[in-house]
Amino acid sequence: MRVYDIILKKRRGHELSKDEIDSMINGFTRGDIPDYQMSAWLMAIFFQGMNVQETRDLTMAMALSGETVDLSCIQGVKVDKHSTGGVGDKTTLVLAPLVAAAGVPVAKMSGRGLGHTGGTLDKLESIPGFTVDLSKDEFVEAVNTVGIAVVGQTASVAPADKKLYALRDVTATVDSIPLIASSVCSKKLACGADAIVFDVKTGAGAFMKSEDDAFRLAELMVDIVKGAGRKGAAIVSNMSQPLGFAVGNSLEVREAIDTLRGAGPRDLTDLCLSLGSLMLVLGGKANDTEKARAILVNTLETGAALSKFADLVSVQGGDVEVARTPDNILPSARCLEAVPSLHSGYVSSIDAERIGVASMILGAGRKTKDDTIDPAAGIMVLKKIGHKVEQGEPLVMLHTNNWDTLEQAAQLVMSAYEISRDKPDVPRLITRVIEN
Amino acid sequence: MRVYDIILKKRRGHELSKDEIDSMINGFTRGDIPDYQMSAWLMAIFFQGMNVQETRDLTMAMALSGETVDLSCIQGVKVDKHSTGGVGDKTTLVLAPLVAAAGVPVAKMSGRGLGHTGGTLDKLESIPGFTVDLSKDEFVEAVNTVGIAVVGQTASVAPADKKLYALRDVTATVDSIPLIASSVCSKKLACGADAIVFDVKTGAGAFMKSEDDAFRLAELMVDIVKGAGRKGAAIVSNMSQPLGFAVGNSLEVREAIDTLRGAGPRDLTDLCLSLGSLMLVLGGKANDTEKARAILVNTLETGAALSKFADLVSVQGGDVEVARTPDNILPSARCLEAVPSLHSGYVSSIDAERIGVASMILGAGRKTKDDTIDPAAGIMVLKKIGHKVEQGEPLVMLHTNNWDTLEQAAQLVMSAYEISRDKPDVPRLITRVIEN
Repeated sequence: MRVYDIILKKRRGHELSKDEIDSMINGFTRGDIPDYQMSAWLMAIFFQGMNVQETRDLTMAMALSGETVDLSCIQGVKVDKHSTGGVGDKTTLVLAPLVAAAGVPVAKMSGRGLGHTGGTLDKLESIPGFTVDLSKDEFVEAVNTVGIAVVGQTASVAPADKKLYALRDVTATVDSIPLIASSVCSKKLACGADAIVFDVKTGAGAFMKSEDDAFRLAELMVDIVKGAGRKGAAIVSNMSQPLGFAVGNSLEVREAIDTLRGAGPRDLTDLCLSLGSLMLVLGGKANDTEKARAILVNTLETGAALSKFADLVSVQGGDVEVARTPDNILPSARCLEAVPSLHSGYVSSIDAERIGVASMILGAGRKTKDDTIDPAAGIMVLKKIGHKVEQGEPLVMLHTNNWDTLEQAAQLVMSAYEISRDKPDVPRLITRVIEN
Repeated sequence: MRVYDIILKKRRGHELSKDEIDSMINGFTRGDIPDYQMSAWLMAIFFQGMNVQETRDLTMAMALSGETVDLSCIQGVKVDKHSTGGVGDKTTLVLAPLVAAAGVPVAKMSGRGLGHTGGTLDKLESIPGFTVDLSKDEFVEAVNTVGIAVVGQTASVAPADKKLYALRDVTATVDSIPLIASSVCSKKLACGADAIVFDVKTGAGAFMKSEDDAFRLAELMVDIVKGAGRKGAAIVSNMSQPLGFAVGNSLEVREAIDTLRGAGPRDLTDLCLSLGSLMLVLGGKANDTEKARAILVNTLETGAALSKFADLVSVQGGDVEVARTPDNILPSARCLEAVPSLHSGYVSSIDAERIGVASMILGAGRKTKDDTIDPAAGIMVLKKIGHKVEQGEPLVMLHTNNWDTLEQAAQLVMSAYEISRDKPDVPRLITRVIEN
């Protein structure tokens, strides 16, 4: 079938066959199908959607478009986690040692941050000496000996997805549920995990503004990985404000360490325990999430989780003292400035995206792929939704090594906060759970 | 506004401003906007549509993207005609001399045929000596002296439309009413006519399969040209079978000459009189279509219309004897073959597109732009819808100079005919008329 006919078929709302989807993805990856036909096809998919079978076929075509990672040399059920991304989302830093301490092997491939959200690799690299550049053998050995390792995702995984994403990014075809689901799942499947837990964010600061869409996306992704013979589970969590208090690389590492010692923010702790419980069940370490949660709480209380974090740092060359005295080890910023509230009342909303952009301006993130990051820069959120605040009381503390950025970041933070006279309802953090 | 945002705005179904449409068309024409963003935008337009104002703005942006022809040096109200194309549609060959004989100056710029429909230029060139390559001055002088000339459309008219059409053609975004309307009207407006009559074809053999869509397109095009300060009118005509009996270049010229002498097929004659009446009214030569029709019938009866055709042939270098003895002058094919009916009964439908493709196979048309045409090749339709036919009686006569094409063309013709036991209703030729 000609490319033209496949575009037309989707435009007319008909179901595409596996062969048709394969020929589009393979032709595009090889460079035989031009961008302009692909973008017309993507826009047609945006409008006409794809059913579950088509989305599975699209996912597999992209997953098989490049290298697939074989993790069979790592013992046990490898459980991966994927988050659709958010401001202050340091979940992986907590979750990986937490479930590894409970016996689930964590062979994690992560990404870097771009724009207003941070990346796990950048956060870990704020620990002096920590390297994410392990060879395949070093990676496997680390997981087999200490049960945990975190490296960068290789460029040769799912090249079709990379090429397709770059096109979607400039043709207004990003926010399509089947396209998002196939993009996420193709990478995860190619990276070789046996089971995957998805954390789909919803709310003002997230990709999926509506909870229903987030739920549909979560269900679809679980469906896809199960269709590919893996296990899957998902949580829909609220991202209407930053997660925890810390935004920025070393600040987030410190907060993750606090959380691993049982003294972290409640929302972050709760989300990690919920995701971790699903991972333990998928990994065969507990029969249900209630039992799994008890195991995880125990690893926090006994210090096993923090100790596993120290193992991770140690095996990847970082200064292991960070786990005991993070303030002495992690880089800290020279310039600190409080942003005061203009009114008295209650915090009724915080625009997480603006907090993320302010943090990027302070030096914590990249505007473009080639920008360098200041690991010490970022924002400590002092007041969250529902907190009482007096006029002049600090809302956040800005951290930077560049004085010139303070003014603009402060303005953005002020515009991100809404203060109301009445105490608002605090949004529930976890709104849906989908078990395997 | 960034291109991305304009794509997104249309994708969301919002109305685009003139500035936004101008920036898309101008950026694309200059080469600043890549094909892949344009094709995503076109697909978004396919799904979300454009309102009348947006379609007008799109038309004007394309009309002004290149050279605009100034016909003010030609006296009188210049009335142009556009047909959305059909199999056996030799209307222009009849209509141009017909209205010129009634005093409306005809300064016609036409196109060549591609695929299963023929082009006016190719048809005229089947007359020995006839050239369509007049200079601008020769063209104007011809119209000012004999009242009629037909040339090729210059390549520098509406380059945005050419570039856009080439992209639509490979991205399944051709059949969108606002995109068709703006494409047609941009060329017609750039070519400088004072008034334009549209012949929108509907039915199985046409672009617009439904009569309602054809009517919407007709109304929209009249709206657009009136919005641009010109006059407009339109007819919706049925193309569920070939128009007249002749399909193929010299065969169609001969049929046009028969029609100009008052001995043509009824459907062709009727359509030309109807379109011509609207042109006469727009050109100020009659107050209403009834009076206009009487004038035109008179030019047929007195021989003035045929004589004007002879003037056209003469002024463009063709053998003027063609008007008197076409069979002696026009090229004729060496191989003729009848295609017999397999059944007895009534012709209930003829797939005009298949007849067009069969004619192309015989040599009358181009599969690709670089193919050459055999002016003598084509098909004479002997049986049309409603005609009674006996088993073995010829349905059509194939004309070609290439024996090898007969078998395939005959098969296609046979598959194009449906024969029923009961006498079918004959479709009405003209279903709607829109006056200025």
